[in-house]
Amino acid sequence: MDKVETWQVVNRRLLVDRSPYARIFEHDVIMPGGETIHDWIDVELPPFAMVFALCEDGTIPFVRQYRQAALAYLLELPAGHLDDDEDPLVGAKRELREETGLEASDWTFLGRYVMDANRGCGWAYTYLARGACQVAAPNHGDVGVMSVHLLTLDETYKLWSSGGFHSGPTSLCIGLALNVLGRIV
Amino acid sequence: MDKVETWQVVNRRLLVDRSPYARIFEHDVIMPGGETIHDWIDVELPPFAMVFALCEDGTIPFVRQYRQAALAYLLELPAGHLDDDEDPLVGAKRELREETGLEASDWTFLGRYVMDANRGCGWAYTYLARGACQVAAPNHGDVGVMSVHLLTLDETYKLWSSGGFHSGPTSLCIGLALNVLGRIV
Repeated sequence: MDKVETWQVVNRRLLVDRSPYARIFEHDVIMPGGETIHDWIDVELPPFAMVFALCEDGTIPFVRQYRQAALAYLLELPAGHLDDDEDPLVGAKRELREETGLEASDWTFLGRYVMDANRGCGWAYTYLARGACQVAAPNHGDVGVMSVHLLTLDETYKLWSSGGFHSGPTSLCIGLALNVLGRIV
Repeated sequence: MDKVETWQVVNRRLLVDRSPYARIFEHDVIMPGGETIHDWIDVELPPFAMVFALCEDGTIPFVRQYRQAALAYLLELPAGHLDDDEDPLVGAKRELREETGLEASDWTFLGRYVMDANRGCGWAYTYLARGACQVAAPNHGDVGVMSVHLLTLDETYKLWSSGGFHSGPTSLCIGLALNVLGRIV
């Protein structure tokens, strides 16, 4: 293994503040060899929880909504930003209930992942939730029209393996969950 | 399916310009119902290609480098930004050769994915490359110390399924590639 030599951040400047949605920072970095990189952009987006929920009837709930970065409607796993210092599992349960009206009995953590290793762009906390049941109607407070769509495991697998889920975090979480479920061959 | 009603972007402003690495925009959005969202942040990062390369000896090359957003050294699949209008497959081959010195004979596209469906943060073009062979020494021009590490399929699978790859795009691409290789059960 290489010697662990970290980068030293200096002159950190806040360029754009749209808290709590986004903050853009810029800083200089002094590298282990002494070289300095100027004007390094750091994109601070909130951490979020994402849930692959397997219902007792074998279906998986997805949410469909217009997504500005894709200029299209996307089918995605239920997900949402964590509140300040919120436990990621608590946030995952909250988002699943808000977006789909489901609660689940059996939760498995699938890992935490940074969306851009250079810039940040938020950390995803990914979960598999088994034994999901409808307990309420969806009650999301997000902007725009959002609808819930139920796919079977087969439909989910086929769409995922053909590259049909264009949200990176969604496709990441589906792969991890299908693996735990022993569903990928 | 819902009626396809897109959002209308108005008053687009460039807030931060660090081309070609990052541009931060802000705009207002008029939604289908007429509601306006002000000051929507859009993070434009370059598209990138990422490669899960399977060598003829059964190993997979990873690159290890310090990553500012994780404040740690991360093990990631070879990847890099696409040049202007560069074909993603051409970019994937270039990045694999630059970062590892490998060339591969058999390429499979695994899909394109946006890292943040709200903000953007770059699109990943993911590939599986089989029949990879060493043809040169690595010759990367990136900043900092980068080293190549070879893992077996078993090692890759174990680390991936335990959440050990903290880069979102890397874990996404590993799952898609292991599925095509029939390696996940």
